[in-house]
Amino acid sequence: MKLLQERIINEGKCLDGGILKVDSFINHQLDPQLMEAIGEEFARRFADCGATKILTVEASGIAPALMTGLKMGLPVLFAKKQKPSTMEGMLTTSVHSFTKWQAYSLCISSEFLKAGDRILFIDDFLAYGNAALGVIEIAEEIGAEIVGMGFLIEKEFQNGAKFLREKGMHVESLAIIESLDNHTIKFKE
Amino acid sequence: MKLLQERIINEGKCLDGGILKVDSFINHQLDPQLMEAIGEEFARRFADCGATKILTVEASGIAPALMTGLKMGLPVLFAKKQKPSTMEGMLTTSVHSFTKWQAYSLCISSEFLKAGDRILFIDDFLAYGNAALGVIEIAEEIGAEIVGMGFLIEKEFQNGAKFLREKGMHVESLAIIESLDNHTIKFKE
Repeated sequence: MKLLQERIINEGKCLDGGILKVDSFINHQLDPQLMEAIGEEFARRFADCGATKILTVEASGIAPALMTGLKMGLPVLFAKKQKPSTMEGMLTTSVHSFTKWQAYSLCISSEFLKAGDRILFIDDFLAYGNAALGVIEIAEEIGAEIVGMGFLIEKEFQNGAKFLREKGMHVESLAIIESLDNHTIKFKE
Repeated sequence: MKLLQERIINEGKCLDGGILKVDSFINHQLDPQLMEAIGEEFARRFADCGATKILTVEASGIAPALMTGLKMGLPVLFAKKQKPSTMEGMLTTSVHSFTKWQAYSLCISSEFLKAGDRILFIDDFLAYGNAALGVIEIAEEIGAEIVGMGFLIEKEFQNGAKFLREKGMHVESLAIIESLDNHTIKFKE
């Protein structure tokens, strides 16, 4: 997606350890018009997947998932990273975060995710695919099906997409980064 | 806002201690169409406030803030509740959470909030106004102006709006709850 790639080139910052910082339009400040375009693009790519619900993870996944849900006419569910005091019937799994180098829990209420649901998972980054794997585990546990996984930015060198496709997933990434070596953003051709 | 009140009546759950649970369309699952209508309503109510930026707090504020930003053509900034490892030049303050009965930090990068900014603050709940107060403190610290504060649900009996108006704030709440006594939702006429 050219619009997204241009923003990454113009505003993205490469940090040590293969981290790409895009705080000015995805992870801290948001550009609503860009998010709307992203929602339209996911809706186009996943038009035939038969999803009944969008699933994402707080907090940075919420904006693109909401816009995708708006364009596809689907409800959006965001998994929480801490057990809420008021949640009952919780589905939970542990995820290792690449950026923060620590584990966190993914929590989803069984009230909103059920057997037979067809889930489109949307998230900001695809690195090693750890959050996506957590979602797959929860879906398997309750008998829901994941019909697509869409990411704004894929770091191809961390092999998350390869890992997810080997599990049979339909993966779409809007910007695919081949390398961040020498603090330089290199997109896949 | 009639549409929002109807959803609260139909799906809201009163928990002990004055807590209203609206997990099915605001705090866990989201209804994108409702959020779009909410964004339109805030854009209408704050049309003349001269805002240059929308500010909210992760995670539940993101959806209504994003839709308000889309309708008003403004960038959206979401404050984080934990200090991110990659954030520099951080503005921070401590907030006491009513629902979770504990304190958390509000963190905003000084890269995205500057002297002269005219901030429209959007959040899901207004209880005692603690998060709003934290935002006021940060704005004062850097010399930004808060030109409006919009909330989806105001719990009037916890006096947050009164407190904020005494500080000179323009407060707009889309649904105002007078009481949750006896686990019954009573709206202000």
